Amino acid sequence: MGCKALLVLAWSAQDSDLAPFLPGPVHIGESLLVLPHGEAPRLAYLTPMEREEAAATGLAVIAPEELEVLRWAGEHPELAPFLAKVVERAFATCGLTPGRIALAGHGPAGAIQGACAILGTAGWIFVPGNALVLTARKRKEPFEVGAIRETAETACAALRAVARLLAAASEDSGGELWLEGERLRVARLRAEVGKLFAERGLEQPRGNIIAPAEEGGVPHSAGTPDRVLRAGESLVVDLFPHGRLFADCTRTFCVGEPPEPLARAHATVRAALEEVSLRAAPGVRGWDLQEIVCVHFTAAGYPTPISDPGTTSGYVHNLGHGVGFELHELPSFKKVSGAEGVLRQGDVFTLEPGLYDPAAGWGVRLEDLVHLGADGLESFTPLPYDLDPKAW
Amino acid sequence: MGCKALLVLAWSAQDSDLAPFLPGPVHIGESLLVLPHGEAPRLAYLTPMEREEAAATGLAVIAPEELEVLRWAGEHPELAPFLAKVVERAFATCGLTPGRIALAGHGPAGAIQGACAILGTAGWIFVPGNALVLTARKRKEPFEVGAIRETAETACAALRAVARLLAAASEDSGGELWLEGERLRVARLRAEVGKLFAERGLEQPRGNIIAPAEEGGVPHSAGTPDRVLRAGESLVVDLFPHGRLFADCTRTFCVGEPPEPLARAHATVRAALEEVSLRAAPGVRGWDLQEIVCVHFTAAGYPTPISDPGTTSGYVHNLGHGVGFELHELPSFKKVSGAEGVLRQGDVFTLEPGLYDPAAGWGVRLEDLVHLGADGLESFTPLPYDLDPKAW
Repeated sequence: MGCKALLVLAWSAQDSDLAPFLPGPVHIGESLLVLPHGEAPRLAYLTPMEREEAAATGLAVIAPEELEVLRWAGEHPELAPFLAKVVERAFATCGLTPGRIALAGHGPAGAIQGACAILGTAGWIFVPGNALVLTARKRKEPFEVGAIRETAETACAALRAVARLLAAASEDSGGELWLEGERLRVARLRAEVGKLFAERGLEQPRGNIIAPAEEGGVPHSAGTPDRVLRAGESLVVDLFPHGRLFADCTRTFCVGEPPEPLARAHATVRAALEEVSLRAAPGVRGWDLQEIVCVHFTAAGYPTPISDPGTTSGYVHNLGHGVGFELHELPSFKKVSGAEGVLRQGDVFTLEPGLYDPAAGWGVRLEDLVHLGADGLESFTPLPYDLDPKAW
Repeated sequence: MGCKALLVLAWSAQDSDLAPFLPGPVHIGESLLVLPHGEAPRLAYLTPMEREEAAATGLAVIAPEELEVLRWAGEHPELAPFLAKVVERAFATCGLTPGRIALAGHGPAGAIQGACAILGTAGWIFVPGNALVLTARKRKEPFEVGAIRETAETACAALRAVARLLAAASEDSGGELWLEGERLRVARLRAEVGKLFAERGLEQPRGNIIAPAEEGGVPHSAGTPDRVLRAGESLVVDLFPHGRLFADCTRTFCVGEPPEPLARAHATVRAALEEVSLRAAPGVRGWDLQEIVCVHFTAAGYPTPISDPGTTSGYVHNLGHGVGFELHELPSFKKVSGAEGVLRQGDVFTLEPGLYDPAAGWGVRLEDLVHLGADGLESFTPLPYDLDPKAW
């Protein structure tokens, strides 16, 4: 792109464009990273109190005093001009002169746009750079693979805990599930999952999906806490916790006898997942796998996004996404994609076929998190697929 | 500002500029809100699967089909031009023609800058708008006050749980603390806090601070998980969980006999907190309270940011910050501030004096979360202040 440097703006060290440059979790707030072309990155932090945390990164740092943070904060109460001054000073510290800069990171939209406009008048030209970092993050380093695997193990433990609770529940004459003397609600399962994650140091910054029946019939419905669970209905449990990196895994349960359409959909989804797991290999495009799944579902009589664009019944979403510092990253499974849509060794991604019938009130999704390693595809989520929690 | 509309760009419904417009927690991803001047807001969402969640907001919605999301995704694999098309279509749906737009929300820096640059060529002029939303959020609505109070109650329960564990710990001959047959480490307290929050549906998107001795001597150090706690050292516990809104509260503990400098600093900080709690009233500036605290600490012989700008020993930070949809919002306690720096009825903010000696290896901070209501100042964190957990 012919840029003099990459600039990553971050409001915390957890920023998914900044975190890949850091050796591990650090407690830093507003910060920015400048990576001059062909040189080592420099981390600028804005709060003097964070000097120990910044030093612990092992990166060359630019201290708030060098940036003259206090001066600019005094002269510019508004964020955009303040940010422009801090960025300009960080560039100067790195010996950069005005020119093209690739911009990555995340932050307040107005302040970013405003700061870029101000810097533009001084000759700095910004071009989008988030995709640069995203592309660099597609192939996972060994420590990243390890961190995702570790988070996935805990996600699996949480799904097993959910299965245990469901297996222990009893059904009353009206079909409602009871556990420990209370009606079993979405909230009870969510608390169990949250407790387990907390004990093992994981967060759920994007929440989770524990969606029964009609709620699970729409893939992104999170599930209403007070909803009482019932026998014979589907329950989609999709967990995507964050440790150092994300993991993502889904199973679908049914306590008691599943209705025939649900049992059939589940078997069809399971077969689809098996099929694409065998076909996922270096050089294959994510979209190729999406097409394979669509052929599979069409043959079984379900609408798909290819047969019925915009369908809300049948198979209604994409097959997968990369997982890492962000929940959704590369590889891409979209139709329109370049190299970022081709599976390569070192990629970590989900495979998550599903079938949904919002009118009939059920949904099925089975999602594995897999790593394309030197020895082929490895699942980080080796869990049972059974609808029946008692089979787990 | 003479703008035709406010545009809020959000990558999730938890965006602190979008959440205030929503009736409660919803599970929506990429979205944007357009608030044409003098009209009702419209929520545009990008994923068809989220139609149920979007409808549940009760807002007028703009569906992905109206935005032609699929078309733009096909034509523009890169995020910036895609976003520009979606925003342009959302504006058109609202009947807006090119002109000045206040920009708020949060997102990827490069894509935001790039989209604004593209829209700029079509006559759309963006000006920073995050501060507009922030200002509107300074005075808390009753439901916001209720949500913060609820989160604060759980933060208090977690601090009491920490105090219980510390009170139950025993000291070995070398001064290390033991609990339940193991050395008591930061990680054990962090797990207890996380478990309690999970059970009650709270997250910690910014983590927490559980920082012993030398780590607590630097206010923003989070505390190393493996660090074993010892008798006679300070332990700063600063919790800032998120329910629907944030809460924020800090206490400092010492198991066993505190060294004299720590005991003296604790008594001085406690007196400072009492003093500013009596002085916080409508019309008072946050900075006025900061000056009062600095006078108090200077009289006790400690350096402050006023007596010794940039000091890393003594009182080294600001007195407080507003709390709400974000952990740090208005009112401001900064010296340079306008109306956003004046306390008013309806504000919710922290008061958090502290003293630190990183060389000697201790830190003390006491932080209350308070609401300036019709009947004066109310603390949402009515906990003991004692260093000794057995006094709790």
